[in-house]
Amino acid sequence: MSNPSILILPGDGIGPEVMAEVRKVIGWYGEKRDLQFDVSEDLVGGAAYDVHGKPLSDETMAKAQEVDAVLLGAVGGPKYDDLDFSVKPERGLLRLRKEMDLYSNLRPAQCFDALADFSSLKKDIVAGLDIMIVRELTSGVYFGEPRGIFKEGNERVGINTQRYTESEIERAARSAFELAMRRNKKLCSMEKANVMESGILWREVTTRVSADYPEVELSHMYADNGAMQLVRAPKQFDVILTDNLFGDILSDCAAMLTGSLGMLPSASLGAPMANGRPKALYEPVHGSAPDITGQGKANPIACILSFAMALRYSFDQGSEADRLEAAVEQVLADGHRTADLLGEEGVSPISTSEMGDVIVAAL
Amino acid sequence: MSNPSILILPGDGIGPEVMAEVRKVIGWYGEKRDLQFDVSEDLVGGAAYDVHGKPLSDETMAKAQEVDAVLLGAVGGPKYDDLDFSVKPERGLLRLRKEMDLYSNLRPAQCFDALADFSSLKKDIVAGLDIMIVRELTSGVYFGEPRGIFKEGNERVGINTQRYTESEIERAARSAFELAMRRNKKLCSMEKANVMESGILWREVTTRVSADYPEVELSHMYADNGAMQLVRAPKQFDVILTDNLFGDILSDCAAMLTGSLGMLPSASLGAPMANGRPKALYEPVHGSAPDITGQGKANPIACILSFAMALRYSFDQGSEADRLEAAVEQVLADGHRTADLLGEEGVSPISTSEMGDVIVAAL
Ligand SMILES: CC(C)[C@H](C(=O)O)[C@@H](O)C(=O)O
Ligand SMILES: CC(C)[C@H](C(=O)O)[C@@H](O)C(=O)O
Repeated sequence: MSNPSILILPGDGIGPEVMAEVRKVIGWYGEKRDLQFDVSEDLVGGAAYDVHGKPLSDETMAKAQEVDAVLLGAVGGPKYDDLDFSVKPERGLLRLRKEMDLYSNLRPAQCFDALADFSSLKKDIVAGLDIMIVRELTSGVYFGEPRGIFKEGNERVGINTQRYTESEIERAARSAFELAMRRNKKLCSMEKANVMESGILWREVTTRVSADYPEVELSHMYADNGAMQLVRAPKQFDVILTDNLFGDILSDCAAMLTGSLGMLPSASLGAPMANGRPKALYEPVHGSAPDITGQGKANPIACILSFAMALRYSFDQGSEADRLEAAVEQVLADGHRTADLLGEEGVSPISTSEMGDVIVAAL
Repeated sequence: MSNPSILILPGDGIGPEVMAEVRKVIGWYGEKRDLQFDVSEDLVGGAAYDVHGKPLSDETMAKAQEVDAVLLGAVGGPKYDDLDFSVKPERGLLRLRKEMDLYSNLRPAQCFDALADFSSLKKDIVAGLDIMIVRELTSGVYFGEPRGIFKEGNERVGINTQRYTESEIERAARSAFELAMRRNKKLCSMEKANVMESGILWREVTTRVSADYPEVELSHMYADNGAMQLVRAPKQFDVILTDNLFGDILSDCAAMLTGSLGMLPSASLGAPMANGRPKALYEPVHGSAPDITGQGKANPIACILSFAMALRYSFDQGSEADRLEAAVEQVLADGHRTADLLGEEGVSPISTSEMGDVIVAAL
């Protein structure tokens, strides 16, 4: 049997730097645990635009469709801010999500014990926080038609369409219920059913799906209240299900509660392929951080934990994922900190590359 | 000259209770400051549905169009949860906003010194916080067509339309720039221009309007990052401008940072009427709080401060508004607390009505 395949798309900004550390981890698994991966690498985002004139070439798209998992670094940067909408770095990422049909975006918001002080929230509000946000990722206002800027009388109008079919809602809901079954059997679905018909359908379908998961306690919350409750008392949540746009905002809000964005991974999963593995893309929640690019300041942990999610969700290596996550907790407990995690007295930062090294050593 | 007119719509849940305290304040201004108002009262929300079968009667709508200011309590409650979308309590509020054309919704997120400990955020992050969110209130996905749940093949699809014309964006932006001029001349506009064309137009128009306000420093931020930055370091902001849906979520997030939702007022302003006053509706940010209705536990301060905003924005009584706000700060400094503000040792709560009384006494 051939090795599982991984396509690495480092992208822009600190993407390549943090991905270099993931490569060390992948190397360690090959050498020490005899877990070999066929790793290839390609361009996405601004890096792809510079070479191909678009943020994702058709060849790269085709490769992404064939591999067992894609690992992505980050896209975007000031250099590309003035590009036309259709070729902006983000479009490369959005094309991957859409064409791979990665409808279920898992965004854990977890507060690491060693880092609870970094949160802007009081320690007792966030210590031990462990939420999983499931964001629908292939539909809604991100992709709905009609969209664009149109002439209307003597002015222009900007239009986007929020659009969800029952089956789109259903598959996202199922993935959230499945996750809830493996966690604390508590699921909160967020929308604006008091204002939007798409939210009414969302509520109706999630309620219907819940009949198949009688053990899971389903609740519904308006998304504005959801944002409030996340800030007020985030530990009331376990799994949160929401749509593409609300998920974008609420998951960032939740991520920031933990105080350490440089720590948070994500997985975007689609339907099972012929080999039974889901289509999958893994990426850190943080962005390309142009302000610290090339300075060895980036925290590679979010990207390394994204690889841990790949071990768990793509490669059936749950215990190896646990091992990697434990190694990360270990180096934090030992006091190792990249520049984004400073603040404690007497701690001086280690570089991106040193962080990769101590994690590999802890493995 | 006739007295300025106010239409009071107490609505549902704690609405009537908190509005009773506003009436005391209005009474005080009539007696002691010779500021007389013609006050009438009517139904909105579930209370209107119970009588008229709809959440706002045409007669009430017509009255709202004629008065100088509307004061609204709150709408909604579990009793009305299963009503058809078209007659839900919220539709009454949305009809008022739309037909009065109240395009500029001002939502201050202010942290009261005496209450900084109530925030889930660390005290130094929120102490002294004073943000003004300007939310566009009459357009966007709240009102865009097409909307509804439609049959498509053998399933249904839920559709809403995000829709902004240049002039809609422009008038909201102007009101935000005007406010910024009277504050710290710093305005941050939030959208998702990296994903939505309506966000691109939003960014373009706000940038164009900024030419008329060269003293105001305009910045742009993606709304997801905006949510993060609000949680991370809210004091970086002064005035925030955003659309109807993002504004709904971001303003609730910002409100919760202060830790005391029962304190926060809002103003919704439209174009000037014949008498020069803007069309205006004032309401607390909190909801109808069915869980504490009728128990004398509600905090009337948000509603009273909404009347202070009416004094400032509708009745040209800025110094009387200052006086009322100072009275509120005073009673807080004196240690008076309604049940929502408990937590300090040795403080026992006063009732809704007692809070109204001490504020009137402080005036
Ligand atoms: C980069 C951008 C297109 C993207 C999004 O809006 O989905 C990002 O914010 C995210 O959450 O992954
Ligand atoms: C009650 C509801 C319709 C309303 C909204 O979504 O605008 C509320 O959340 C608000 O923010 O005033």
